[in-house]
Amino acid sequence: MLKQVLIGALCGSVVLTIGILIGHFGITKSGNSAPSWVKDVVKDVDEDLIQQFLSEVDNVKIQENLRELTKVPHMATTAGDEHTVQLMLKRWQDPDSGLDQAWREEYMVYLSFPDPNKPNKVSVVNPSGSVLHTAREKEKPYTSDQEDPEVVQPYAAYSPAGEPKGKLVYANQGKPSDYHHLNQTMDLRGTIAITRYGGAGRGAKAINAAPYGIIGVLVYTDPLDINDGLMSDVNETYPHSWYLPPSGVERGSFGSQFGDKLTPYLAAKGDTYRIPEESIPGLPPIPIQPIGFKDAYTLICELGGDAAPQDWQGGFNCTYNFGAPGFKPTSVFNDSDVKLDIFNHGKIVNSSNVMGVIRGSVEPDRYVIYGNHRDSWVHGAIDPSSGTSVMLEITRVLGGMVKRGKWRPRRSIIFGSWGAEEFGLIGSTEYAEEYLTKLSERTAAYINVDIAVFANATLRASGMPSVQNVIFKASKQVSAPGLDSTSVYENWIRYFNRTSPTHGLIPSVGYLTGAGSDYAAFVHYLGIASMDISYTYDRSKTNARIYPAYHTAYDTFHYASKFIDPGFVGHQAVARTAGNVLIRLADSLVLPLNCSDYAESLEEYLNTAVSLYQEQLQAKNISMEPLKRAVSSFGKAAEHLDQVIHSSDLANETPLKVRKINDQLMLVDRAFLNPLAFPDKYGYRHVIWAASSAGKPTFPGLADAFAKAESSGLSGDWDKVHYHLSVLSQAIDAAASILADVI
Amino acid sequence: MLKQVLIGALCGSVVLTIGILIGHFGITKSGNSAPSWVKDVVKDVDEDLIQQFLSEVDNVKIQENLRELTKVPHMATTAGDEHTVQLMLKRWQDPDSGLDQAWREEYMVYLSFPDPNKPNKVSVVNPSGSVLHTAREKEKPYTSDQEDPEVVQPYAAYSPAGEPKGKLVYANQGKPSDYHHLNQTMDLRGTIAITRYGGAGRGAKAINAAPYGIIGVLVYTDPLDINDGLMSDVNETYPHSWYLPPSGVERGSFGSQFGDKLTPYLAAKGDTYRIPEESIPGLPPIPIQPIGFKDAYTLICELGGDAAPQDWQGGFNCTYNFGAPGFKPTSVFNDSDVKLDIFNHGKIVNSSNVMGVIRGSVEPDRYVIYGNHRDSWVHGAIDPSSGTSVMLEITRVLGGMVKRGKWRPRRSIIFGSWGAEEFGLIGSTEYAEEYLTKLSERTAAYINVDIAVFANATLRASGMPSVQNVIFKASKQVSAPGLDSTSVYENWIRYFNRTSPTHGLIPSVGYLTGAGSDYAAFVHYLGIASMDISYTYDRSKTNARIYPAYHTAYDTFHYASKFIDPGFVGHQAVARTAGNVLIRLADSLVLPLNCSDYAESLEEYLNTAVSLYQEQLQAKNISMEPLKRAVSSFGKAAEHLDQVIHSSDLANETPLKVRKINDQLMLVDRAFLNPLAFPDKYGYRHVIWAASSAGKPTFPGLADAFAKAESSGLSGDWDKVHYHLSVLSQAIDAAASILADVI
Repeated sequence: MLKQVLIGALCGSVVLTIGILIGHFGITKSGNSAPSWVKDVVKDVDEDLIQQFLSEVDNVKIQENLRELTKVPHMATTAGDEHTVQLMLKRWQDPDSGLDQAWREEYMVYLSFPDPNKPNKVSVVNPSGSVLHTAREKEKPYTSDQEDPEVVQPYAAYSPAGEPKGKLVYANQGKPSDYHHLNQTMDLRGTIAITRYGGAGRGAKAINAAPYGIIGVLVYTDPLDINDGLMSDVNETYPHSWYLPPSGVERGSFGSQFGDKLTPYLAAKGDTYRIPEESIPGLPPIPIQPIGFKDAYTLICELGGDAAPQDWQGGFNCTYNFGAPGFKPTSVFNDSDVKLDIFNHGKIVNSSNVMGVIRGSVEPDRYVIYGNHRDSWVHGAIDPSSGTSVMLEITRVLGGMVKRGKWRPRRSIIFGSWGAEEFGLIGSTEYAEEYLTKLSERTAAYINVDIAVFANATLRASGMPSVQNVIFKASKQVSAPGLDSTSVYENWIRYFNRTSPTHGLIPSVGYLTGAGSDYAAFVHYLGIASMDISYTYDRSKTNARIYPAYHTAYDTFHYASKFIDPGFVGHQAVARTAGNVLIRLADSLVLPLNCSDYAESLEEYLNTAVSLYQEQLQAKNISMEPLKRAVSSFGKAAEHLDQVIHSSDLANETPLKVRKINDQLMLVDRAFLNPLAFPDKYGYRHVIWAASSAGKPTFPGLADAFAKAESSGLSGDWDKVHYHLSVLSQAIDAAASILADVI
Repeated sequence: MLKQVLIGALCGSVVLTIGILIGHFGITKSGNSAPSWVKDVVKDVDEDLIQQFLSEVDNVKIQENLRELTKVPHMATTAGDEHTVQLMLKRWQDPDSGLDQAWREEYMVYLSFPDPNKPNKVSVVNPSGSVLHTAREKEKPYTSDQEDPEVVQPYAAYSPAGEPKGKLVYANQGKPSDYHHLNQTMDLRGTIAITRYGGAGRGAKAINAAPYGIIGVLVYTDPLDINDGLMSDVNETYPHSWYLPPSGVERGSFGSQFGDKLTPYLAAKGDTYRIPEESIPGLPPIPIQPIGFKDAYTLICELGGDAAPQDWQGGFNCTYNFGAPGFKPTSVFNDSDVKLDIFNHGKIVNSSNVMGVIRGSVEPDRYVIYGNHRDSWVHGAIDPSSGTSVMLEITRVLGGMVKRGKWRPRRSIIFGSWGAEEFGLIGSTEYAEEYLTKLSERTAAYINVDIAVFANATLRASGMPSVQNVIFKASKQVSAPGLDSTSVYENWIRYFNRTSPTHGLIPSVGYLTGAGSDYAAFVHYLGIASMDISYTYDRSKTNARIYPAYHTAYDTFHYASKFIDPGFVGHQAVARTAGNVLIRLADSLVLPLNCSDYAESLEEYLNTAVSLYQEQLQAKNISMEPLKRAVSSFGKAAEHLDQVIHSSDLANETPLKVRKINDQLMLVDRAFLNPLAFPDKYGYRHVIWAASSAGKPTFPGLADAFAKAESSGLSGDWDKVHYHLSVLSQAIDAAASILADVI
């Protein structure tokens, strides 16, 4: 009986257990089971997926991308440019490794070209009209690349046409101080100035010259500035090394504002109102033309007059004289003029951006944008095709994951292959102007990788302080090229570092104050957290201003693969780092934008400003207290938000709470925008990161306004300092209120 | 055995069933049960709660609010104003019916006051210096209210001080055309002009006068314009009716821009940079002073010269002559001058907004703002205290629900009791300037109820077209005062209606193109969907410009309760309607902002623009096609978004999908903002709703630019038309892209 009872009990238990199991697992609870989307909305970044991404990024594929991109010159709006448009579209529409969608967006933009039928000329002409010397029309070929008929003659885009003729003078870098100095030694009216690259913007060399009556400007790259002094193409310069051959000429845009010149602050559509060409601000008022240093040598070493100051001397084995004006009496060029025949002309042409997207799964209305320009001056292997090769490899790997159903990012990713950057960041700026509100409302971050590899020594990054941390995190997971047991981060910190009050020794990340690449519109016009990432030089090994083939006909696949990044491991490291940053921005539950790091930078700027300006401002009855209070509010709000993030179990919170925090992190930069911040440069609205001519590591508008008031002493200028201080303080206060509790 | 088997099976079944029940109901499923927040995030507006709200809104409480608010005059920054600050704070901090939080925010603002020790004077002075007549200094008392020493003397705020003396002329409404006409009949230099209210802005009457050499201006309210012709206080005007007594004077701000005058586009904090007083734009350049119609009668009926045109004649029983200039030879005032002694002075004073919030439960970072100003000119029973009484009743009912734990809105509600509106919408504008980015990023809508009840005949509403629908919905649920079986909506449609292509006959909702109340900064500067709601006149019964006691010492509790809204049922209807709108905006799962109604308005504007301008624009080679395409894109995008909303089961979707749609609806208006849209009026950035002087029911910037170009014929002006067309088309395109699929 006992046995039967026991068996019965046992059977009963078994049956009960079976029942419990059926009841628990076999029947769906109605009305209380989690909707299927709950799991998705709380998903965070997947570290395995990142490892997968890193392992798939292939240096050989990047190399092949570069080879294909650089087959022919692809200056903006040329047939070669269209070839790259087609290539991008083909890749991004590939059924196995493409994006969800890709398309082109077109703008009618104002570019400037030389006349292929009437090349620009620079010559030395004696009083009887005989031409004693003519500068090379095109660069000397060392490979077949330079012989491509599509290689554009070196020229200064947006230089006016004209045929000025006059005595030559040497004006160093064409800075205002250079012309001022030169003008004290002679009458510059009617002269032609020869200047070297560096020190002042390209167009500025002509803009600064014109007030002195100078009628034309030449510009060249001095071997001291680009070649560590080396000059000979017999054994020193390319193709023997990365150095610039004597006939190499840096092309470039000589305009100073970004975006299409005829449609400022509007998208350059066909019917858009265009300002008259003569109203374009910031263009060279007199003809200017770049030449190679071989021709510059011929001219400069024959100049008469007194010797120029020591810091005007370059790499030539002769004394750089001012010019009398003109050449030495002992020169064959004695009494001769230099004549420029410039036939550049403006043209409204159709330029394309190629856009591609991966649609976000959870927050499709949040964008992470990754971009680079597509157009080059010639073959543009480094500028910009190194970046484009990297972008294509990132999209191949990510696109493949999407196509195989392995992955879809939380947020949408937009890839932009911008057109006409070389003419003034035009494609990216028109895009920003066209979609200003949408981008401003939805974009979490912009990643720019233009020249991916200047050199293969170390990572370099610039950006808003809030993006520093995600770049650190990503770079720690990538091996430094050629240094298997060292991370990109560990290598980086050796080359660039600083001591942060919060983090101790860390790599130093630069600020995006200027307009050097396509981040400009995103930073200055839209106030979007942006960054620019590349591999760069070991500065102990070279003083070159930039990689020597920059904007010349030598910036080719051969040059890149032989001298800049053999094996393409630098490219690979950049693709891995930038791609990792991209995935983290797109997939993290909480956006990896660190507002406390922003606060640290504002505090540093404040300390500098106080030590530089406070005493004099007090004397003018202008208080810095509102600025101090604002920076302090920002710091406290950032600290508090950090605490909220770290003390919350966000994976179990309502997705709208996470979204609220993400919106605070994403949108805080918008509060720094004020279209009235810089009255003279409307394209710059971000009060913290504008370009400054005062050259102080502090708030740019304050620094510039202060410098102006200090120099003029006018009370109206001190009022402008006070006004800007109010704009600045209120912008920082407003940013603090974005980070503070929302209600 | 069979029995035993049966019993065993039965027992087994029972045990199994028990097990299943335990397993299903007794054990929580780990990892698969719905988080507690799932229910909250999909909750929609609760109709029972709305009925509860409607039933709790109490007309007697509104009446008592008004009585308390109007005990003493409460002009901005006076002791009476501070009394109302304390009242608002006390109510909003009440433990049983207050809000979550309430506080004051202070701004140092530039106001203009008369000198209590040296009252402004208007007199008739004969050639020997004898004063033949002096206008009343203050209004005649009929109740003790008018005897309060705090009643400010009638004056024109922001009129300069000065003591001009000259011959009087009658200039009708002081429009440019009026002075132009008058100037053709005589030399106006050195004269004083008397004008009647209406036709031109207050300050414009002086601004328009100055170019003709006129040195002072008087302004009064003509009985024809305000009293349906009635004049006698023996039996016709207040206290016998709502009509203005003969000594009643409309005070007002005579400045033309909104916000603090010394800190344009910056919050007026203590340390904020202030422009010099003499740089304030838009102020009267010559002294101006308002007087009662009794004094105006004395002056006008004595004027000499020719009879003014028929449409210049007002309600006096005499002919309105131009003035010779000066009085008739037969007048006792013959040869006399009119002298103004104006002692107004500017003063920087501390003005407070009182802010109160109810924190949102699900989306605290989405705001619905409800506001009204608190300051009056005198007792301000109607303007603004009718609105404040309504606001206090809404907050009492909602606050009580919150305090009793019955309700918490999905989104945060912010209540603003603005300061210094009467001096140029200052409190609300400073608030908008201080929190521009935050408000722009987070505010779903702004509801303005200033004068709640002009009269008790019908609802009147103005706003962005997108808010029309929620006002309709709310007003259908409220009984019209005095008409129990008629809804506010049904009553409204009798007074104001139009035929919509989509909806058929509906009440017509006005547009907020001007800056008549505190919605201005929200509409024009921030581009937030806004509305203004009130009860108003039966126009078949009166032609009064506005309720006759407007801005006078007769706008008292007695006046309001006896003549405007006896029983306060109009107030109650407004509280119910506006409160219902507020709850719907705060609680609806999908924001009740209808983008298709916006599209309909844009299409109407477009049709008008095409019929008015296309032919002439084509002749100037300016295409309207981009505008047509943009409006069409907007319409298609709106239709598509509507379809997405209606075809989705949003209550079962991820809350981030709902949020995405809500952000599209909320942020679409931001795309219409462009600080470059109206170069002369930076405070106006919304390309669709700015004030226009051309007076056409179409895009205001286009209408004004066209009118200017048509009149000047200058090609530069036609360029500006083209430019504005580009700005406008691109703004509409950008708005369309906000509504279109996000990626």
